[in-house]
Amino acid sequence: MNEFEIIEHYFKPKLLNNQYVPTLGIGDDAAVISIGEGEELVVSMDTLVEGVHFLRDTSPRDIASKSVLVNLSDMAAMGAAPRWITLSLTLPENNIDWIKEFSSQFNNLAAKYSLSLIGGDLTKGPLSITIQMHGTVPKGRFLCRSGAKPGDLIYVTGELGAAAYTLRYFLNPDKNIEPTKEEIKKLNQPEPRIQAGIVLRDIATSCIDVSDGLFSDLNHILKASNVGAEIKLSNIPYSNSLKKLNKELAIDLALTGGDDYELCFTAPQNMSQSDLKEMIATVEIHYIGKIDQTCSKLNLMDENGKIYKFKSKGYQHF
Amino acid sequence: MNEFEIIEHYFKPKLLNNQYVPTLGIGDDAAVISIGEGEELVVSMDTLVEGVHFLRDTSPRDIASKSVLVNLSDMAAMGAAPRWITLSLTLPENNIDWIKEFSSQFNNLAAKYSLSLIGGDLTKGPLSITIQMHGTVPKGRFLCRSGAKPGDLIYVTGELGAAAYTLRYFLNPDKNIEPTKEEIKKLNQPEPRIQAGIVLRDIATSCIDVSDGLFSDLNHILKASNVGAEIKLSNIPYSNSLKKLNKELAIDLALTGGDDYELCFTAPQNMSQSDLKEMIATVEIHYIGKIDQTCSKLNLMDENGKIYKFKSKGYQHF
Repeated sequence: MNEFEIIEHYFKPKLLNNQYVPTLGIGDDAAVISIGEGEELVVSMDTLVEGVHFLRDTSPRDIASKSVLVNLSDMAAMGAAPRWITLSLTLPENNIDWIKEFSSQFNNLAAKYSLSLIGGDLTKGPLSITIQMHGTVPKGRFLCRSGAKPGDLIYVTGELGAAAYTLRYFLNPDKNIEPTKEEIKKLNQPEPRIQAGIVLRDIATSCIDVSDGLFSDLNHILKASNVGAEIKLSNIPYSNSLKKLNKELAIDLALTGGDDYELCFTAPQNMSQSDLKEMIATVEIHYIGKIDQTCSKLNLMDENGKIYKFKSKGYQHF
Repeated sequence: MNEFEIIEHYFKPKLLNNQYVPTLGIGDDAAVISIGEGEELVVSMDTLVEGVHFLRDTSPRDIASKSVLVNLSDMAAMGAAPRWITLSLTLPENNIDWIKEFSSQFNNLAAKYSLSLIGGDLTKGPLSITIQMHGTVPKGRFLCRSGAKPGDLIYVTGELGAAAYTLRYFLNPDKNIEPTKEEIKKLNQPEPRIQAGIVLRDIATSCIDVSDGLFSDLNHILKASNVGAEIKLSNIPYSNSLKKLNKELAIDLALTGGDDYELCFTAPQNMSQSDLKEMIATVEIHYIGKIDQTCSKLNLMDENGKIYKFKSKGYQHF
């Protein structure tokens, strides 16, 4: 099969029958999309490289999941509803089995999240996947990193650390700390918090998805909002798996391990926690700390009320 | 410099002061853009991989040019005005000199074509560049590959073959056929036909940019439009450089070499060539043949009126 036949056979979309169908989709020099009145377009882009973002023996199915889901997680962080996707696939060889498995899962997820694949590129080279996603949000109601104010409470969805725990096991296998199926799923097929993001449009004062680790990502909120924060280590929703590890390592993985794809957001103090929990019904939320005026400073407090320090600062590419 | 500092220092945009400024640009999980009423969004995506789309010793400046210009060429083929760009840069190492030179040319081109860089990704891995571009076009007036009708005349802008000629020289250096500066520029810094595309919105019945070679790309128009065509080899605007080669090789490079980034379009027969030439003032156009009813069949006619055959069929990745 050549380039064009692969696109035609495996990626030509089963077009969705709703108002968000593109005017012109796959198969031309570019796609054309119409945007309804009163809506804004939210645009994200993420690249996954073999050996960097996923291990060399990761299945095509898991690679497809992760590449779509990290972009969905960006949409969630913006409060956007996902609409269209473009895919640039770089493959070392024309391996039809690989493409079959990848495209099958890719198309499943596109259908699950009502996404139309509208275009992209297929090239030869070291395995990497770039996905660019479009979402929509009613005008002026998107979430972003700036906007947190002193006094706001800081929350995080779900639990932290399971993906980092699993990755660590894959890199240094040890029978005593073998991850469960659920923990492996947190690494390879994270659940994007789309519904939570949409509910948060009118509640959160700032929001980010936790991809590099809570410590690093919350710092992005503080920098963008020009505020500081104090969080209590005892409030962090540690994944159950971390209980098998020593405390320092558990804190390290939960706060700097990354790949959680949970949402970290701030909400005004007068918004009650129980109301918040009721509104965000699709995932547990956890109060972890408070925004203050100490510009860009993030203090982690241990159980004795002392500032906790660790060396790692979240994953940085360079 | 870490990932965030590189983005901040080299890619944080000097925002354009017009109605197409994004609502939210670089530095959040995604960008937000507002689309004016009566406009459609045109979305393209292209990946360039070292050793596949450009040679290993290509300068960062030329890589930046090519990665932006191939997407601008997609915009031209759609009749779109370029507006926003997202960049995913995958680099093997944190080489600040490389980034400095790449970003300098990237930002020059963004300014030249009124493009706002609104987001992207920076990751570690084998050198590759994925660019995703957004353009706008008045509702319903975009160009595409389908729409050519029997009787329509086929045109191509500029000249063909210089990029393929230069690439061939770089791969097999031979002093007798050393390319000129102009010919090297055709390979490394092709000129996108944006203005021609915009003029063609209300004229062309179909349009494509010549990236894989005229033979392959015109075939895409025929397939999408469900028509056939006959073109005369003597009408092809061969680049001057090709005169140094034997005839068969010259035809091969001009028709299947690719990387020309000219536009190939069809226009109704009653549209006079001189009117067309006057309207498309920014680049020469050349009449090369005629659309007919022989479904998807493309006949190349030699000077004796016989069908010409060659083996190559344009560049295919797999």
